[in-house]
Amino acid sequence: MKRIAILGSTGSIGRSALSVVEAHPDRLQVVGLAARANVQLFADQVARFRPAIVSLATQEALDGLSNLRLPAAARVPGPEGLVAVATCPDADVVLCATSGTAALEAVLAAIEAGKTIALANKEVLVMAGAIVTEAARRRRVPLLPVDSEHNAIHQCLHGRPSEEVRRLILTASGGPFRGHSSEALEAVIPEDALRHPTWRMGPKITIDSATLMNKGLEVIEAHWLFGVAARQIDVVIHPQSVVHSMVELTDGSIIAQLGVTDMRLPIQYAFSYPERWVAPLPPLDLTRLGRLDFLLPDHDSFPCLRLAYRALENGPGLPVVLNAANEIAVASFLAGRLAFTAIPRVIEETMNAYEPRPAGSLQEVRAIDAWAREYSQGFARRLELNI
Amino acid sequence: MKRIAILGSTGSIGRSALSVVEAHPDRLQVVGLAARANVQLFADQVARFRPAIVSLATQEALDGLSNLRLPAAARVPGPEGLVAVATCPDADVVLCATSGTAALEAVLAAIEAGKTIALANKEVLVMAGAIVTEAARRRRVPLLPVDSEHNAIHQCLHGRPSEEVRRLILTASGGPFRGHSSEALEAVIPEDALRHPTWRMGPKITIDSATLMNKGLEVIEAHWLFGVAARQIDVVIHPQSVVHSMVELTDGSIIAQLGVTDMRLPIQYAFSYPERWVAPLPPLDLTRLGRLDFLLPDHDSFPCLRLAYRALENGPGLPVVLNAANEIAVASFLAGRLAFTAIPRVIEETMNAYEPRPAGSLQEVRAIDAWAREYSQGFARRLELNI
Repeated sequence: MKRIAILGSTGSIGRSALSVVEAHPDRLQVVGLAARANVQLFADQVARFRPAIVSLATQEALDGLSNLRLPAAARVPGPEGLVAVATCPDADVVLCATSGTAALEAVLAAIEAGKTIALANKEVLVMAGAIVTEAARRRRVPLLPVDSEHNAIHQCLHGRPSEEVRRLILTASGGPFRGHSSEALEAVIPEDALRHPTWRMGPKITIDSATLMNKGLEVIEAHWLFGVAARQIDVVIHPQSVVHSMVELTDGSIIAQLGVTDMRLPIQYAFSYPERWVAPLPPLDLTRLGRLDFLLPDHDSFPCLRLAYRALENGPGLPVVLNAANEIAVASFLAGRLAFTAIPRVIEETMNAYEPRPAGSLQEVRAIDAWAREYSQGFARRLELNI
Repeated sequence: MKRIAILGSTGSIGRSALSVVEAHPDRLQVVGLAARANVQLFADQVARFRPAIVSLATQEALDGLSNLRLPAAARVPGPEGLVAVATCPDADVVLCATSGTAALEAVLAAIEAGKTIALANKEVLVMAGAIVTEAARRRRVPLLPVDSEHNAIHQCLHGRPSEEVRRLILTASGGPFRGHSSEALEAVIPEDALRHPTWRMGPKITIDSATLMNKGLEVIEAHWLFGVAARQIDVVIHPQSVVHSMVELTDGSIIAQLGVTDMRLPIQYAFSYPERWVAPLPPLDLTRLGRLDFLLPDHDSFPCLRLAYRALENGPGLPVVLNAANEIAVASFLAGRLAFTAIPRVIEETMNAYEPRPAGSLQEVRAIDAWAREYSQGFARRLELNI
């Protein structure tokens, strides 16, 4: 029986994770749940899975949980709650499925506590890749990627030594605006961008998919997860999203992982690892799909990908800046205040304005993050006025 | 330094294998060479690679090798020569790249001598899969497939336990007549069938590709190599021949191996295994290729594949019958005496006429083979008269 703690249980990944747990009642058990503010759904999850410890963003939200038969010590609000759930003694595996940077400290605490980490959050590695992977190495804690691309690469590598790896090839659906010119992208509104062709995900990541920043963050993530240099990570547009990613080996042979576009698959992989269990999902039928396409990404219309490579190559603080500025710009776009094409402008301007500083500790990373948020906020406001 | 003996050095695979050896002079050395009757090419190879032992089909052919500075004991003609090369004390790896069933005894002798087997010959497993795999298991000898499909599956499995495997998916180019109706196939002449769209191979295997019998033999081969039942082996038509084959795991995840269509890749894999070396080949560029197609095979126009499944499911002697009748029918077609569509008719008629008998020893297998050749020869002659 594997005991699971989930950070971000009411989000898209969190809900899928709970359905994986439900599909394997004899093998998986939920021992901790943390969410932000979706009290109603969280209450349902707590009633159903009966975790030993829970957390919501505020005490007020926690108080909204009626009929909660848990002692006060097992109801912890805020960041301390995330850490408490992530380190609860019962848990074997901690799934980090929160969005943004909220769970950074909790993930590090879970690593220190020796938990296996199932990582569905990009920001943790984009902001603190060196710190997190170093801690995981030191504590000999597996860092299992849940993102479908990195999960695919983990499956393709299957323990192969890094000397055998020539190149990682991340696939990207290309988002809803694949083939659009820069001009056509000017007029994009949030509603258009929220319609992802192949994956159903939360709003932030869906916009990131539309700008290709999602793929850029994944390049950075792949660098940290697999210890591969930026120039050894390629991105290929693959509209069907069936080849989740590939690894090119030294002899030119390519190993690819394919599957249906359902996050329950990589989540179950991470929960079951190193075993592999039967999944209650229809198999992929390639003959029904008929064809798979592969294209080069359009760096002119989608500059975010290039910006991410630049940040990775010129780190260590620059990926933090990239990520913070992107969050600000996307929020502004989603609020209808910023043009779609202004997202990369905000990020690039903030990266240009950044003066390198130490990024070796979590405090230093947080400081860079705060600076970048403030700077990009200011720059975005100036652009917003021109809308 | 790995020391290699090659059975069938003047054929397509043999020549590719020697070019792999030449690409890795610091890692590979040729210690034995055997061929049938291409004296001139063989003489060149011997002069170049200086093996310690050689064999050709006849003493006469061996005598044709001028300037051969080898003692008489190191020049052995005929079947004994194949065995002598396959068991020469210096060899670590024996590549079986002969066509047909000539090398069966030599491969078994190599296994008994503890050599690693790189197997590029289908007939060895189709005829004597149980005997050969049992011997390899007993002697703990690796049986490394060189056929691109099985080599791909070997790479996809990468040591995964068989409980994790749900299905093997062999890809097939579909041959030059993909999409042809049975009627259109009536008029096919050898010249048409010898034009394979993606792979350059010898004539017998090229015709087998055109009838899909090649894929049928591969299904039988896969059964023996990977211990997987016939119903767990699927065939998918993939015209680009870039995905060499796939493995579907229990959770529905599919692992695929892709690469350029060059036999040096699987040969080098078998020679380098368990290591993986840099190959002097251009990498596969999926974005240049643009698309990959996948279709169901057309069992009506290409009945050979169905016949192979039937043989595997109703073995143990029936695959021997299938293979022998196919060799007879293909030879007759290549000689211009038999219609393309008569190939499966000859095979099916011979399979129908076969009365099960023991197939546990090599002698018994040889007896079934002899019967099937005689029977199919007789039936083919009757059809030939009607051309």
